[in-house]
Amino acid sequence: MFKLYYAPGTCALASHITLEEAGASYTTERLDFKSNQQSSPDYLKLNPKGRVPTLVTDHGILTETPAVLAFIAQSFPKAKLAPLEDTFAFARVQAFNSYLCSTVHVAHAHKGRGYRWATEESSFSDMKRKVPESVGACFVLIERDMLKGPWVMGEQYTICDPYLFALALWLEGDSVDLAGLPKVADHRKRMSERPAVKKVLAEEKA
Amino acid sequence: MFKLYYAPGTCALASHITLEEAGASYTTERLDFKSNQQSSPDYLKLNPKGRVPTLVTDHGILTETPAVLAFIAQSFPKAKLAPLEDTFAFARVQAFNSYLCSTVHVAHAHKGRGYRWATEESSFSDMKRKVPESVGACFVLIERDMLKGPWVMGEQYTICDPYLFALALWLEGDSVDLAGLPKVADHRKRMSERPAVKKVLAEEKA
Repeated sequence: MFKLYYAPGTCALASHITLEEAGASYTTERLDFKSNQQSSPDYLKLNPKGRVPTLVTDHGILTETPAVLAFIAQSFPKAKLAPLEDTFAFARVQAFNSYLCSTVHVAHAHKGRGYRWATEESSFSDMKRKVPESVGACFVLIERDMLKGPWVMGEQYTICDPYLFALALWLEGDSVDLAGLPKVADHRKRMSERPAVKKVLAEEKA
Repeated sequence: MFKLYYAPGTCALASHITLEEAGASYTTERLDFKSNQQSSPDYLKLNPKGRVPTLVTDHGILTETPAVLAFIAQSFPKAKLAPLEDTFAFARVQAFNSYLCSTVHVAHAHKGRGYRWATEESSFSDMKRKVPESVGACFVLIERDMLKGPWVMGEQYTICDPYLFALALWLEGDSVDLAGLPKVADHRKRMSERPAVKKVLAEEKA
């Protein structure tokens, strides 16, 4: 039994979808980012980083999207959410997810979380203006070099797919033109048609 | 047989140490970041992201430190560089390394790579001024909640250790006071005494 702490519109969507795709038994707890619930003393006891996702498992608490996704894939091997038997293929999955967390998500975060890395209002505005370019460059690289199609790793759906999907939902808000990203747009559409994704989005939007 | 592209003073040190600890057969190729060799057309063919590390393997090319480290650990199970048999313990290793790449390394990068996320000189100066605080806060969290001691995961040395070591070498340059971080300082000292680390540092400094 798992319990996932998430907030709508965040990268926790990837873990939520993956629990659903795995057929895991889980409950969810929604955090209200507007009232800064992720910084409440109770939540910080669970996750001192004050971020989502947080996955409570029978073994303990797990954070960080790439780790949560690989953990679910390894815990439910029959769901075939990662190439667990092929060390190199699994490493490629991890490299893709690592790029999303360390570069793509970070570029996006400069739109609204500039206070993490600077102090002045002028810097926040400057960062905000750069987001279409920096996030756009990440997605051009994904479009050109990483997204094999129809899924990120090719014919087989993996834990890369819900993570890319979660971040690609931010593109309009980041003023990145989807017209230049046909494979990403196609991937997003294909993802949104999966029953697990429909179910999870309905819950997160409810 | 592996080939590792690295640059001295970068996070590629973690992969370099791990190849050595694993007893892997490998060669290295040093990039000169001062002449921007990581952006040369030849290197971009290998790694379009223009970063290090890049690991060339018999199966293809691998990038992103957390993926490279887990790949080496899985490829050399006898070296016991990660708890491969314990899915949750392995996930905790991945969560730690994911935090280093997505939060700690990123905080540090705002000292000299502000152009990734902003345009104005005033923003770069602002970011630079914030680094002691933002990197410092990451390491306070590591000191307090993550680094079990003597190694990151406790009694067993893992792929978390060389990665933490590589990033902890930046602390003085980031003006973070090590006096408040006794466990991190002790870990750094213990790491620097390992034969593999001594050998790799001697090569990178030669």
